[in-house]
Amino acid sequence: MQSNHAEAIDRRLKSIEGHVRGVRRMVDDGAYCIDVVNQIVAIERALKKVGALVLDDHLHSCVADAMGSSDAEERERVVQELLQVYQAVGRG
Amino acid sequence: MQSNHAEAIDRRLKSIEGHVRGVRRMVDDGAYCIDVVNQIVAIERALKKVGALVLDDHLHSCVADAMGSSDAEERERVVQELLQVYQAVGRG
Amino acid sequence: MQSNHAEAIDRRLKSIEGHVRGVRRMVDDGAYCIDVVNQIVAIERALKKVGALVLDDHLHSCVADAMGSSDAEERERVVQELLQVYQAVGRG
Amino acid sequence: MQSNHAEAIDRRLKSIEGHVRGVRRMVDDGAYCIDVVNQIVAIERALKKVGALVLDDHLHSCVADAMGSSDAEERERVVQELLQVYQAVGRG
Repeated sequence: MQSNHAEAIDRRLKSIEGHVRGVRRMVDDGAYCIDVVNQIVAIERALKKVGALVLDDHLHSCVADAMGSSDAEERERVVQELLQVYQAVGRG
Repeated sequence: MQSNHAEAIDRRLKSIEGHVRGVRRMVDDGAYCIDVVNQIVAIERALKKVGALVLDDHLHSCVADAMGSSDAEERERVVQELLQVYQAVGRG
Repeated sequence: MQSNHAEAIDRRLKSIEGHVRGVRRMVDDGAYCIDVVNQIVAIERALKKVGALVLDDHLHSCVADAMGSSDAEERERVVQELLQVYQAVGRG
Repeated sequence: MQSNHAEAIDRRLKSIEGHVRGVRRMVDDGAYCIDVVNQIVAIERALKKVGALVLDDHLHSCVADAMGSSDAEERERVVQELLQVYQAVGRG
């Protein structure tokens, strides 16, 4: 992974890790269920933003290289991966 | 839109149109709410599959062309579009 | 389905049906893939809003009745249905 | 939060916390972007399962109590919260 966003990705993942820990504490303290569910949804959104940064790096490095190459098989491999990601993300 | 999947896309969209019409009838006939919600979720999934076919065409035509070109601005435009789609799809 | 939102639900489903037909025309006319994908995402969002209206009706009728009843089995049935819907919606 | 699933919820959140830490390590070690994105999607799914457990507890405690009460305002409050959660979850 060649990365323009490496620092931002790590910073966000670290913050998500803390967020998850915070939700564990909420549950432990008997917080209201709906507040817990809303925090869980907030973490999912934060993860999607990290995913977008990783994909940004991917498109600017691996995909750009593969699509610019003359290797048709390699180009197809990269396209299939992007389609698989699209479907996985859509299913959530 | 250069399309390998044009026929499949149209066939699926036509089927989705009929599916929506069917749900209208269900509502009209006083069907059970949960059955209606489940049909709505089924239509959303069918739409995601159409979206994947359209994206498949896009990656094999416009993206392949742009990424193979020497025009850096055009390559960046295509990448930004894919990122925007990724985020829109993730949000649902 | 006892419905406070019957009219709004039908109106929205009719509009979604027209939206799907519009996307078929776009594809037929060779519209740009990304524009097609964005319209598909817009239809998914419109469906989610209809789903919310149907669920609103459901919570105010069937769920309210079941949860107010002394039939524990019926209450559990209604709860399980809501959980199943929650998971289906989350998966998209 | 009255909880039948308190232990399972904490166990799963702890495992998710470890999963996030694992993804940080992957990024640090220069893992392939698509593998990172797939792990992020896996974490989102794990979070949805925790959300379902929390909602299960909620429906069996707060919602059951409120819906069984004669306080119409309280019943409506609980219904509105469930609708808000449904929409938040649908948007991901």
